[in-house]
Amino acid sequence: MINKNAIHRKRIVHLAEGNFSLRNSKMTTGVLRYGYHESVAVIDSQYVGKTAQEVVGCGGNVPVVASLADAMKYRPEALLIGITPTGGRLPEPMKTLCLEAISLGLDVYAGLHDFLTDDEELVAAAQKHNVKLWDIRKPPKQMPVGGGLCRWAKSYISLMVGSDCAIGKMTVALEIDREAKRRGVKSEFVATGQCGIAIAGWGSPIDAIPGDFMAGMVERDVMSVDGADLILVEGQGSLLHPGFSSVTLALLHGAIPHSLILCHQTTRKEISKIKDVPIPPLPEVIEPYIRLASPFRKPELIGVCLNTSGTSEEEARAAVAEAEKTCGVPASDPVRFGAGKLVDALIEHRRKLGY
Amino acid sequence: MINKNAIHRKRIVHLAEGNFSLRNSKMTTGVLRYGYHESVAVIDSQYVGKTAQEVVGCGGNVPVVASLADAMKYRPEALLIGITPTGGRLPEPMKTLCLEAISLGLDVYAGLHDFLTDDEELVAAAQKHNVKLWDIRKPPKQMPVGGGLCRWAKSYISLMVGSDCAIGKMTVALEIDREAKRRGVKSEFVATGQCGIAIAGWGSPIDAIPGDFMAGMVERDVMSVDGADLILVEGQGSLLHPGFSSVTLALLHGAIPHSLILCHQTTRKEISKIKDVPIPPLPEVIEPYIRLASPFRKPELIGVCLNTSGTSEEEARAAVAEAEKTCGVPASDPVRFGAGKLVDALIEHRRKLGY
Repeated sequence: MINKNAIHRKRIVHLAEGNFSLRNSKMTTGVLRYGYHESVAVIDSQYVGKTAQEVVGCGGNVPVVASLADAMKYRPEALLIGITPTGGRLPEPMKTLCLEAISLGLDVYAGLHDFLTDDEELVAAAQKHNVKLWDIRKPPKQMPVGGGLCRWAKSYISLMVGSDCAIGKMTVALEIDREAKRRGVKSEFVATGQCGIAIAGWGSPIDAIPGDFMAGMVERDVMSVDGADLILVEGQGSLLHPGFSSVTLALLHGAIPHSLILCHQTTRKEISKIKDVPIPPLPEVIEPYIRLASPFRKPELIGVCLNTSGTSEEEARAAVAEAEKTCGVPASDPVRFGAGKLVDALIEHRRKLGY
Repeated sequence: MINKNAIHRKRIVHLAEGNFSLRNSKMTTGVLRYGYHESVAVIDSQYVGKTAQEVVGCGGNVPVVASLADAMKYRPEALLIGITPTGGRLPEPMKTLCLEAISLGLDVYAGLHDFLTDDEELVAAAQKHNVKLWDIRKPPKQMPVGGGLCRWAKSYISLMVGSDCAIGKMTVALEIDREAKRRGVKSEFVATGQCGIAIAGWGSPIDAIPGDFMAGMVERDVMSVDGADLILVEGQGSLLHPGFSSVTLALLHGAIPHSLILCHQTTRKEISKIKDVPIPPLPEVIEPYIRLASPFRKPELIGVCLNTSGTSEEEARAAVAEAEKTCGVPASDPVRFGAGKLVDALIEHRRKLGY
């Protein structure tokens, strides 16, 4: 069983020095936007005196400060390294800051390729000050092989899938989770990538897990919240992306969902970074997902989520109408138009299946 | 580029103490049967004086000896740990033997979960004696993401796929490779699991590689032998096995094969260790493979390989005839009836495609 409370209710200060932006500090902006725990300050000396909202458009009045010392008056309990240095290594100035945070009694969380817990000096300091180091991308030592166990889950499970990678599958799941919770539905977001894990405070970085155990870890994480009304599993990659399709299939065969929500970016016409592979019409995109899952449980497509960023509202509304017509299910851009329709569809499908 | 000559032409002594059998020393029996390099002795004190052929039915006159000291007269150049201790760890007596082998100037090869190269004492000894430690299951530090590059390979590529895991996909590829080479076809076997790698002397343990890089490593390995007449990619798992399907898909989207050879064990009716998932008729088994590969290159099913072990010859012949009828392609049990038909089909398909 997962410790779901890994960083539950911690007050977080974000390290985003020199890189606080929607593009360069995805983990920080994700935690600010959806934070299941509280953000108290962001460190980036170039924006001192501004609020997070003013810099990245989310995070409300969370202040941007120049240093960890300046952040301490907001009583943080943990430092989150919300930026990834080139190559994912831990540069010396960042390590110095981690040691400072530890000595001040803060936990340190990071999604780097270099693990904090592989650094003897950091480990010794954390022990001395009785704080926790959390490597978000580090797989556990013991992992299970997938056994199709989610077929016997008591909860209703929905998986986000996509026409390509990096189109907003995590955002869709989080928007639906937020709307479901607002309505009093006992919903659980299962994070499967490092940003999602930083946001939720738990989960497994499936893309960093060896092939034999990917589906098993998804299964374990889903079953750890079995009993919820609604389990929303963050998607990764796409069956159409040859580099990441294996991660995608591990999610499908690990979670064995009752329903799928298809995510698509309306301006994307070809698979990213793969020459000459056009994205087919959405009904063709979804078909192999249903086919591959069917030996275990046939899932139903119950909604389409469009990422319409970079298009006008008129174009976005037209795209939503078109998707509803071609796929025969409710569609929305949940960031632009809200996730209400998707939550309606999930509740209705769950009821229909008798959960 | 891979160093294909990692253990090329080494004279190997196998450590199989207490476990020399078809079941318990798969790596050793694989190397004995298909050895692309030479086996000179097997250590297992319970069978001293017998030949490998007498104990496991392959390996010819390779002698079984009681100890490494006894094996030295056969002038081995490398020790292969051909058995896996419970839990995959390196027990102390085995480590002592490794140190002895190193001091005698032998390389040491192992497919353990505990890596030889993580043991400071073994590393120091290997450096001192100028020998190589090879951890067959250890992924490299730098790995690529798959980019669909095999679409531009100059070689004809065929991938073994299966109705389930552990039904003989590696054996099929090796039997076809052997028969192709016998006919003078420049064939390359691309190993994707630890036994195959031990046999071939190179390859990547795809099931031990993190999700983001699985397809990329397959792609890199296939492209490293581009130029061959025929590239045969060892299969892993099955799209029907929820625990291992992601590894299977990484092979399909990494290798982007021109053809598929479907492997099936005739006595297997349900997916192994997964409750209530019957194996569908073979044409239904193959369909999702073709569908998932098609955005990159539509592969053709060109043969069926049946593992008929445990059935009578009459039953085996009937099963082969039935598979040919339902699938419309040549079928065989290559171990029982030879791989000739499959090589014929591969050569014919390659010619048809103009390679």
